[in-house]
Amino acid sequence: MSDCGDCVDCRSKKSNLCSKLPFKVSPWMPRHETSRFTDLKGEVLYHFLFVSSFSEYTVVDVAHVTKIDPSIPPNRACLLSCGVSTGVGAAWRTADVEKGSTVVIFGLGSIGLAVAEGARLCGATKIIGVDLNPDKFETGKKFGVTDFVNSGNCGGKSVSQVINEMTDGGADYCFECVGMASLVHEAYACCRKGWGKTIVLGVDMPGAKLSLSSFEVLHSGKSLMGSLFGGLKAKSDIPILLKKYLDKELQLDEFVMHEVRFDDINKAFDLLIEGKCLRCVIWMDKQVSS
Amino acid sequence: MSDCGDCVDCRSKKSNLCSKLPFKVSPWMPRHETSRFTDLKGEVLYHFLFVSSFSEYTVVDVAHVTKIDPSIPPNRACLLSCGVSTGVGAAWRTADVEKGSTVVIFGLGSIGLAVAEGARLCGATKIIGVDLNPDKFETGKKFGVTDFVNSGNCGGKSVSQVINEMTDGGADYCFECVGMASLVHEAYACCRKGWGKTIVLGVDMPGAKLSLSSFEVLHSGKSLMGSLFGGLKAKSDIPILLKKYLDKELQLDEFVMHEVRFDDINKAFDLLIEGKCLRCVIWMDKQVSS
Repeated sequence: MSDCGDCVDCRSKKSNLCSKLPFKVSPWMPRHETSRFTDLKGEVLYHFLFVSSFSEYTVVDVAHVTKIDPSIPPNRACLLSCGVSTGVGAAWRTADVEKGSTVVIFGLGSIGLAVAEGARLCGATKIIGVDLNPDKFETGKKFGVTDFVNSGNCGGKSVSQVINEMTDGGADYCFECVGMASLVHEAYACCRKGWGKTIVLGVDMPGAKLSLSSFEVLHSGKSLMGSLFGGLKAKSDIPILLKKYLDKELQLDEFVMHEVRFDDINKAFDLLIEGKCLRCVIWMDKQVSS
Repeated sequence: MSDCGDCVDCRSKKSNLCSKLPFKVSPWMPRHETSRFTDLKGEVLYHFLFVSSFSEYTVVDVAHVTKIDPSIPPNRACLLSCGVSTGVGAAWRTADVEKGSTVVIFGLGSIGLAVAEGARLCGATKIIGVDLNPDKFETGKKFGVTDFVNSGNCGGKSVSQVINEMTDGGADYCFECVGMASLVHEAYACCRKGWGKTIVLGVDMPGAKLSLSSFEVLHSGKSLMGSLFGGLKAKSDIPILLKKYLDKELQLDEFVMHEVRFDDINKAFDLLIEGKCLRCVIWMDKQVSS
């Protein structure tokens, strides 16, 4: 995500979607149709999402760089470039979770757990995790999850029925972190009438449609919003979150379950695919024991 | 709409959906399964939406009554019981339209024009009306509509393409006042990326579904919300709007195109059906010339 600091979006408090260098999938630098990046033989190396970080050196546009306090260890700072920051930001910036409120999170992967961490940071008192895998509740507790609903075992009720009973009429905020458009309607149904907010973070397949009842949208007083990079402005919000980490308000250590050296990058992918890992840090320049 | 003043919703700043006496279609008083209302022969008279006002006397629960300044003429005050208040409130309370912003309104009937009036009151500088009938633009100008798009004649472009060109990337707020679920997607597409809000006011048929692209919801930073009675709390907000009318900030006179006596109630309905009337006031107790 870029933060040029100059366009109408970067100057607005309401947007984190830089319109000068908009988010896109491109092999080039954002201001030039070139890579500005070659290997030792002079062959072009391509970019991906403006990061291109599986290398000791890289070329990144200044709009994509955030200066941080050098006392922050890089194996913690890196969590805020995506993923953990997205979840924490979705609770903190997009939803603006209020103290004492009730939160439901669909999907307790890294993003969902980061939403829990963000909601905990904002002072939510009830944080309900929804997942098919009950083991996720134990992990979730570290990040503030207080209650768990096994979506595969609701005793003939829908998840929203269960949540509405647990929360006496619905949660203040519901986050969809699975990436299934069909779950958005269920998340919407879990929200408190009058003011509930549903926030979509999950990425579904291209072309997926989400469907809501027209009557419900009109009569419910609820709102629906998306959250890209958690609504964070990289240059101003990442330093705030890192300060909270140094002050021991924001937990980051608990997300890192493995650290490997670059030679073991395929092992890192295996851990990810096996679901055994929240975040795995790859060190480019030193030997680590995983 | 009730305002009991006592339940969690009435005590919250975020909701106008009283949970003690929720909105429903019922022939009875809200707290009793009786009508408390008979004709001279003792036959039960039924209620509808807790108002039952086609009579010189009626029975209304205290939660549905708002005390107003007696200097306000009743043929203006009545506009704020529904309709005009809904539109004005949708701009003022639900969307919270900011000064200098750009607004699009789908459908320039009474509700859409009331949204324009509310947006004008909030200081919107560009108010674009969208309608199939170009005559509506002339009427709309009285309520602050500055630009018009004929949705039946966009030269091969979609309405959202036209609006995006006119507004350099989308409007800050889009209001759907037609009552077609399929238009909600078009309204959403007219909203400014980063912060645009789409507000649904129109009532579609029961069971109608509105559909949005999952990708667009996630990547756009836009939000979608419904507005019932414009997000207004009757007992506190109606007096504020009537004060604005007395101070000549809020226009109400322009909505009343006809006034008839009760004997002519069918004429009032005919005018409504013929589309010749924004609001027609029925006087119960005096002779008026229409």
